[in-house]
Amino acid sequence: MRQRRFDVRRGDRRVPGLLWTPAAGDGPRPLVLLGHGGSGSKRQDCVVAMARRLVRGYGIAAAAIDGPVHGARRSGPPAPPALVLAEFAQLWANDGDAMTDAMVGDWRATLDALRSLPDIGSGPVGWWGVSMGTIIGLPVVAADDRIGAAVLGLMGLTGPTRARIARDSPNVRCPVLFLVQWDDRTFHHDVAVALWECLGSRDKRLVAHPGEHGDLPADAFENTARFLARHLALDGEPPR
Amino acid sequence: MRQRRFDVRRGDRRVPGLLWTPAAGDGPRPLVLLGHGGSGSKRQDCVVAMARRLVRGYGIAAAAIDGPVHGARRSGPPAPPALVLAEFAQLWANDGDAMTDAMVGDWRATLDALRSLPDIGSGPVGWWGVSMGTIIGLPVVAADDRIGAAVLGLMGLTGPTRARIARDSPNVRCPVLFLVQWDDRTFHHDVAVALWECLGSRDKRLVAHPGEHGDLPADAFENTARFLARHLALDGEPPR
Repeated sequence: MRQRRFDVRRGDRRVPGLLWTPAAGDGPRPLVLLGHGGSGSKRQDCVVAMARRLVRGYGIAAAAIDGPVHGARRSGPPAPPALVLAEFAQLWANDGDAMTDAMVGDWRATLDALRSLPDIGSGPVGWWGVSMGTIIGLPVVAADDRIGAAVLGLMGLTGPTRARIARDSPNVRCPVLFLVQWDDRTFHHDVAVALWECLGSRDKRLVAHPGEHGDLPADAFENTARFLARHLALDGEPPR
Repeated sequence: MRQRRFDVRRGDRRVPGLLWTPAAGDGPRPLVLLGHGGSGSKRQDCVVAMARRLVRGYGIAAAAIDGPVHGARRSGPPAPPALVLAEFAQLWANDGDAMTDAMVGDWRATLDALRSLPDIGSGPVGWWGVSMGTIIGLPVVAADDRIGAAVLGLMGLTGPTRARIARDSPNVRCPVLFLVQWDDRTFHHDVAVALWECLGSRDKRLVAHPGEHGDLPADAFENTARFLARHLALDGEPPR
């Protein structure tokens, strides 16, 4: 697997990202955009693990950018996760719609840039992002119809951008796999189910497991990778 | 794929069944018990299709027996599905616990008989049965700890045997995949979710799709087959 650091410039914004591809071979190939969770980054273990699974298991490229106030968007020494979370919560509360718009723009510019690379090209595109990766990702999926399949979840019809999420949900039209942790104390399963119900996709499934917000079982990662691979296959052939 | 008709004798009961295996090869091999739905039978299309998927895709044997007042348990000319359903509903209402006990006994005797066959043997055992296949199957899975993984669903904490189902649910301990149709008008998703919550399994997932009772999408069949294959693999190796 090849890992490349990239920056996308968008006006006065610098969008720091990572791209994972098979070591060789030209595009077009499927690409999955990975939206990391709160207090994580484009480099966090579960993001890199999902990239590895997609690249090695299915020949699918993967890319991640840092979220607002996360990763290389910060200056100075590494901050404790609780501080990053608190800063994100404050930004979400005070300026949630502008933050969402900015991240939608960053992701779309990133997608433009990545598809101009010879080993990516204009292949099928998917989204994988739960929790903060859905707070930001659901509006991205709703806004960009190049995205043909999405894994979302661990979030609900709640929070400072609730109205925005409710407005965008019917515009999500691609196949969706939506993850719910049934004992989630950050986003209760009732609001998560309500969000899934609002999605405009005809082809959608809700997959719930017992456990808290962070307790997603290992097979959920494999099953979501397979779901994306099935829907993004270049030749229309689902993987076994 | 080889298909064999069998009868198991249990006291004065004759239990009519079908067994599907790969064309050749000795046991032990994994075996999945298929509980058909109301008005169906051991021969109905979706039962045979699931058997084919398990045998051809994963080398797993499959078996089905007719439910009460269904299939070859009936005498006389074929009855219209609505009549069979009405008779089952009446039996469930008037004598639900005895009907359940009898079917649990039939399935356990069937399992004994099948495991004595040289091309089955004492391999891992799974259950696949939704709707009536859960009304009867959940008590089977709760009663027989040879069953190491189960697909259940399209049923809820409701109906004439509600108390029995509630009592048995905590005794289901194996990994479970539980299917829910969100717009189910036969068994509302609220009672279905409540039943999933009661299951004693630590490893359980609920998979919900939009649509009515009978609208299970095609990929639910493939995903449930893969779930069983992963948990019943003889060598502990999950299928790709």
